Amino acid sequence: MAGRVDIANRSLAEPELFGRVRGLSLALTEPLSDADATVQSMDDASPAKWHLAHTTWFFETFVLRDVAGYRPFDPAYAYLFNSYYEAEGPRHARPRRGMITRPSLDEIRAYRAHVDAALAEAWPQLGPDARALVELGCHHEQQHQELLLTDILHLFAQNPLKPAVWPGAASAPSPVPGPIGWIEGRTGAVEIGHAGPGFAFDCEGPRHQVLLTPHALADRPVTNGEWIGFIKDGGYQDPRWWLSDGWAWVQREGVDAPLYWEGDGSGWTSLGLDGLKPVDATAPVTHISFFEADAYASWAGARLPTEAEWESAAAGLDPNEGQFLDDAGPVRPRGYGPFGSVWEWTGSAYRPYPGFKPAEGAVGEYNGKFMSGQFVLKGGSCSTPRGHMRASYRNFFYPHQRWQFTGVRLAKDL
Amino acid sequence: MAGRVDIANRSLAEPELFGRVRGLSLALTEPLSDADATVQSMDDASPAKWHLAHTTWFFETFVLRDVAGYRPFDPAYAYLFNSYYEAEGPRHARPRRGMITRPSLDEIRAYRAHVDAALAEAWPQLGPDARALVELGCHHEQQHQELLLTDILHLFAQNPLKPAVWPGAASAPSPVPGPIGWIEGRTGAVEIGHAGPGFAFDCEGPRHQVLLTPHALADRPVTNGEWIGFIKDGGYQDPRWWLSDGWAWVQREGVDAPLYWEGDGSGWTSLGLDGLKPVDATAPVTHISFFEADAYASWAGARLPTEAEWESAAAGLDPNEGQFLDDAGPVRPRGYGPFGSVWEWTGSAYRPYPGFKPAEGAVGEYNGKFMSGQFVLKGGSCSTPRGHMRASYRNFFYPHQRWQFTGVRLAKDL
Amino acid sequence: MAGRVDIANRSLAEPELFGRVRGLSLALTEPLSDADATVQSMDDASPAKWHLAHTTWFFETFVLRDVAGYRPFDPAYAYLFNSYYEAEGPRHARPRRGMITRPSLDEIRAYRAHVDAALAEAWPQLGPDARALVELGCHHEQQHQELLLTDILHLFAQNPLKPAVWPGAASAPSPVPGPIGWIEGRTGAVEIGHAGPGFAFDCEGPRHQVLLTPHALADRPVTNGEWIGFIKDGGYQDPRWWLSDGWAWVQREGVDAPLYWEGDGSGWTSLGLDGLKPVDATAPVTHISFFEADAYASWAGARLPTEAEWESAAAGLDPNEGQFLDDAGPVRPRGYGPFGSVWEWTGSAYRPYPGFKPAEGAVGEYNGKFMSGQFVLKGGSCSTPRGHMRASYRNFFYPHQRWQFTGVRLAKDL
Amino acid sequence: MAGRVDIANRSLAEPELFGRVRGLSLALTEPLSDADATVQSMDDASPAKWHLAHTTWFFETFVLRDVAGYRPFDPAYAYLFNSYYEAEGPRHARPRRGMITRPSLDEIRAYRAHVDAALAEAWPQLGPDARALVELGCHHEQQHQELLLTDILHLFAQNPLKPAVWPGAASAPSPVPGPIGWIEGRTGAVEIGHAGPGFAFDCEGPRHQVLLTPHALADRPVTNGEWIGFIKDGGYQDPRWWLSDGWAWVQREGVDAPLYWEGDGSGWTSLGLDGLKPVDATAPVTHISFFEADAYASWAGARLPTEAEWESAAAGLDPNEGQFLDDAGPVRPRGYGPFGSVWEWTGSAYRPYPGFKPAEGAVGEYNGKFMSGQFVLKGGSCSTPRGHMRASYRNFFYPHQRWQFTGVRLAKDL
Repeated sequence: MAGRVDIANRSLAEPELFGRVRGLSLALTEPLSDADATVQSMDDASPAKWHLAHTTWFFETFVLRDVAGYRPFDPAYAYLFNSYYEAEGPRHARPRRGMITRPSLDEIRAYRAHVDAALAEAWPQLGPDARALVELGCHHEQQHQELLLTDILHLFAQNPLKPAVWPGAASAPSPVPGPIGWIEGRTGAVEIGHAGPGFAFDCEGPRHQVLLTPHALADRPVTNGEWIGFIKDGGYQDPRWWLSDGWAWVQREGVDAPLYWEGDGSGWTSLGLDGLKPVDATAPVTHISFFEADAYASWAGARLPTEAEWESAAAGLDPNEGQFLDDAGPVRPRGYGPFGSVWEWTGSAYRPYPGFKPAEGAVGEYNGKFMSGQFVLKGGSCSTPRGHMRASYRNFFYPHQRWQFTGVRLAKDL
Repeated sequence: MAGRVDIANRSLAEPELFGRVRGLSLALTEPLSDADATVQSMDDASPAKWHLAHTTWFFETFVLRDVAGYRPFDPAYAYLFNSYYEAEGPRHARPRRGMITRPSLDEIRAYRAHVDAALAEAWPQLGPDARALVELGCHHEQQHQELLLTDILHLFAQNPLKPAVWPGAASAPSPVPGPIGWIEGRTGAVEIGHAGPGFAFDCEGPRHQVLLTPHALADRPVTNGEWIGFIKDGGYQDPRWWLSDGWAWVQREGVDAPLYWEGDGSGWTSLGLDGLKPVDATAPVTHISFFEADAYASWAGARLPTEAEWESAAAGLDPNEGQFLDDAGPVRPRGYGPFGSVWEWTGSAYRPYPGFKPAEGAVGEYNGKFMSGQFVLKGGSCSTPRGHMRASYRNFFYPHQRWQFTGVRLAKDL
Repeated sequence: MAGRVDIANRSLAEPELFGRVRGLSLALTEPLSDADATVQSMDDASPAKWHLAHTTWFFETFVLRDVAGYRPFDPAYAYLFNSYYEAEGPRHARPRRGMITRPSLDEIRAYRAHVDAALAEAWPQLGPDARALVELGCHHEQQHQELLLTDILHLFAQNPLKPAVWPGAASAPSPVPGPIGWIEGRTGAVEIGHAGPGFAFDCEGPRHQVLLTPHALADRPVTNGEWIGFIKDGGYQDPRWWLSDGWAWVQREGVDAPLYWEGDGSGWTSLGLDGLKPVDATAPVTHISFFEADAYASWAGARLPTEAEWESAAAGLDPNEGQFLDDAGPVRPRGYGPFGSVWEWTGSAYRPYPGFKPAEGAVGEYNGKFMSGQFVLKGGSCSTPRGHMRASYRNFFYPHQRWQFTGVRLAKDL
Repeated sequence: MAGRVDIANRSLAEPELFGRVRGLSLALTEPLSDADATVQSMDDASPAKWHLAHTTWFFETFVLRDVAGYRPFDPAYAYLFNSYYEAEGPRHARPRRGMITRPSLDEIRAYRAHVDAALAEAWPQLGPDARALVELGCHHEQQHQELLLTDILHLFAQNPLKPAVWPGAASAPSPVPGPIGWIEGRTGAVEIGHAGPGFAFDCEGPRHQVLLTPHALADRPVTNGEWIGFIKDGGYQDPRWWLSDGWAWVQREGVDAPLYWEGDGSGWTSLGLDGLKPVDATAPVTHISFFEADAYASWAGARLPTEAEWESAAAGLDPNEGQFLDDAGPVRPRGYGPFGSVWEWTGSAYRPYPGFKPAEGAVGEYNGKFMSGQFVLKGGSCSTPRGHMRASYRNFFYPHQRWQFTGVRLAKDL
């Protein structure tokens, strides 16, 4: 989920953006020990240290290596911290990232300082292409900030002691939402996709028309309380609601509640970045897979929104009004809006828009190579850095994955 | 890939259709021994005997059980030969179908005769709903005829002796096609999906408008000769052409040619229903996965057609002009048209059309339950029974599957 | 479990032995259909057709290929029906044996007739080495007769219809045994291992001395009724009784009764060659793994006999007094003796005797190659051909395997 | 490989022993970072932090919990740091030990200090049973010291940077051994097994007689130089030398050299605790599996010694004359003796001695539960703490395991 960039949509990166992004990454890992930052809890996740290093490698590789006189911090890092750029040569296997106990977290912090200083020094001499790559690197790092948070939560969930990244009191309950209201969407030809100004990843374009049939979207995502109703009604035990692959997944994995939930009918807790806390019935449900989202919608007599319906509804709204990540701290989804709090699964497969062309070179080498088997999510979450989101943003995960802050908003035909 | 029916689009089934379909199934299995018809060569495939029995169970379950006085041939068969209808109760696990050495092939033939006779006797008293279910059962059985052929070919390919289902001389070579010509497609709003008259599965509707951007489709599928060019150019060894999941599949499985190909640069053979024969350079390439089709298109500087582009181009044409299955015999793809010879992978994920609603009851219980993770194929193949095909037909398989007669037609943006 | 021979212990094979053995193999497969004889139900098992062919290949390869003028029945069979003789060249992978639907069972019968006729014709001209190989081939085929029966039972157990190979009434119950009596064994130096006259496999020698400490063996194997006591006492749920690997196996596989048992505390049935029948409380328990045998012994405050204790106790007795396979038919363990009814797990790992040397050439190429990870069983079973057994016989299986007619006799220190 | 104790052979534990053992464990982990001490590189290995904690839990659980007024350091640790004592309650799954990033290495050091202080304070009031348990705990901890070293080496081997635990110059080459000389062993009845005085694990007894046939043992283990001869002769590619399970392992895992070797015919390096160094041709070969040891012996026309042959030969010698672990540092095998340098695989399965009875209670609960599927190793290695070894010592591993400092000494029949 990294490195997708539209270098055609370049704008000059501000040193302020660079400084803010780089600083937040450090702040997010401040509560972590060397061991916390090193262990990999599953193949899908990466160690926090790896996120810190990989995002730095990105600037070193795509910007600094063309700067006269730049000396790489350590030539071995290219092998360790390349994620999947085939054109950049061989790299350490992803499921083995957690074996890298050395370099230490402190060494990676030194690596970051080295690169940050070199970039600051090089800044005046960077041309527009390089500055566009810096901007890209900032957005790339924001994506990794979100992954860093969800990966560390997944790691802590493996520990029987259920530690908190940021211990503290439970946050105030989410405001009580009313019953779902239905908002009629636009019908006929609408435009979706990014068309500037401002930064976007290349898969967000080209902007193009689609046709929408009469439909309505719920005015908020589904709550934990509503999800408990699905559980109580035997939703996880009834094949009628499930896609065939989803039913196989539920049975194979023994799934009977959202990820990180523990408990039973008499009470649920869930693990978050602030530790194990009672499930807040009024907050949006999160850590659900596409399969669960789709099954819930079937049970509720509704369906998932398409990407185009979602984007059309959100197009005129301010993405920054929702709940996003502002500072390092124990975020949990709360509140409701078209943006933020939880990523919303759509019913749309992640496939290229008409006329999509991958960008040139290693940076954009594989913009489209993830376009099979995954579904689009929209809107961002409480762990997405504020400012990173827009209506055209296309996040994507496999239908069984649920360690991100994922939720669901219902839709229906009219 | 079975049991999808639109009972809203019902038409009266003709006894002639029923007789023809049931007869062809028997003819297809005429060359098979009891052992040939029993063994299951992989989880994705089913034994020929199971196909014969399951299609019969369909009529027994959905039509005859409501006929007064009907006595099931054997009550245990419901458990053995239900495929995946959860509402019809528990069933034998799919990967264990090959363990059922008894009942024998001859007993299953007797089962078929029993059900055929009962249906003939009941015919005059069947109402329109039942007749629609008979029609559905005929189309369902035609789907299984194609699977039966591809499953038996897969089984025979596991035998080091490489037996032929229908031994004989190599068929005449495919006519020599010219270089690919590009046919410009319609642009703007077009309608796709089934809207009667005539039978269709429910997932083919509702008919609806889509917007097409300027594009062209190749006037024929890719040939074996062209595919050899891809191989010789190192196509299977170059990650640039592959989707990420495809590249992982190629490396994990050691794929370096279409399924059933054996040989090297100096000459290829491929196993077919007529045994091991030299690869015919002028015939359409077949037994390729979506991943391979997509990689080939990238290598060729093109892309896959979308389902809508394909259907729009084929809409006015006669589906029966292509190469289809007419009689039991050693079909191999030859010839070129918008229909027949090989299924054509599209770039479209198999997802519901706007307004799609699953049909009521067990028959249609799961019409949509396969709508995740699969891609749409269009056009039918040399092993699709003639008459089964139409432009709106939606076949679907996972992107790594390739034991069907699958091929590829290129598309490009204009 | 095949092909182990001591060509130093050669004796002349009688044509009578050959005829009897070859005839029994055919009789055992008489009730089988082509499909029954073709399917492979697990990697550990082989199809009946493969057993018939492999034992024939043995004579063809090791005896007939040196006979002037012999023409192989089909040169392709060497690839299909070699089991594991590396020196005889490449061979079909063991877990894929069930894919070979052709040649058919009838063709394999013709293969057998061809080889039998050739051997009869060649008989007068065979020298002593060749005749020893014929004798070896007969013993080899007897081993496969037992495997054939246990493999076909395993296959039929996968069929929800639970067919019987030889349907019929339940056999008379086993005679009621008294409580276990303890027979004190010999102490000090005893000799074990084969030292002629008569045939033995090479791993049965050299004959050598071992030291026995004071001990006693039970006068009969454990019964089904006693085993039900173990189940009722929670034996399968209590880690105290189990070896560590055994406990992992029980939990991973969900084992809670002998293989082929179905039921619960209120009544058990078990599948045999005569179909599904009530468990006979007075018969010896069978289809148990080494892990189960060892756990039962721990629970009973006893232990397993060592191979030397067992062989020493059985040395002076007539091996043919027990229950063995005389004719094709639905054998089940009944009766009690030092020989027959059920193979008895010993606590001895299958390792070479002092001074053991593998035989020369392909026939004996791998006599010792199975000597890791397996345990010795003694005494033969109801499905071991009568005449095949002796006190020095060393059968061996992995500690989790239990599809043979395996049982357990207790031992204790004095 | 832990917790085996003969509480019948108790002797009073000296506070000196306790202090020395506890101090060495800390010294061994001194070069490790928090991350180094936390990550688990494979299911067979445990994190260094876990070793430090588990050995401490042992004293806390079996000694201190019976001391009036003792307060556990943290009640949650019992769950985290119990290894496999079923009687001590549920525990964290072994393959998930590497997920425990918290408590930190420093917290575990504090845990150790807490328990050490409590034990020192309690010492005067401990009775003989408790003191015997302290002695047992010391021997138990010595076993874990060896595992800690081999586990950390395995972890560092996963890091592409190939770090050294103790960087430094290569140690002096091993003294050049002469050609193998053969030492004739004792024949007839000999006694093996422990019979005091001094500490031993319970599986080392009872002492008993065995019969040895004429044989000779090599006067030293096989060297790296000799092993390179095996490689050059195609030993890893020739099935003749291999046990059947070993050949399957070699092919499945792609094994073609000892573990941690890198290179080819023109030169080999191997990773050790001192980093990547050239293979010393004159040092004993190490990091080989039983399968490799057995194959080498077959290739060399020899065999493995039995446990009894080995123990008989070593019985009168001083175990401390060999190379053992004296202090924290980069040990590599060098030198040759009946003890030390490398563990020597025997051909004997790890099974109970005649009359063996597991000890009472949780401490000895499972002394025998590992007695299936493993082979005995004798003699200790360069990473076994000096003083821990004796002729009767029985180490054991599965035949494919090779991350210990394992080697091979040849034997032959006379």
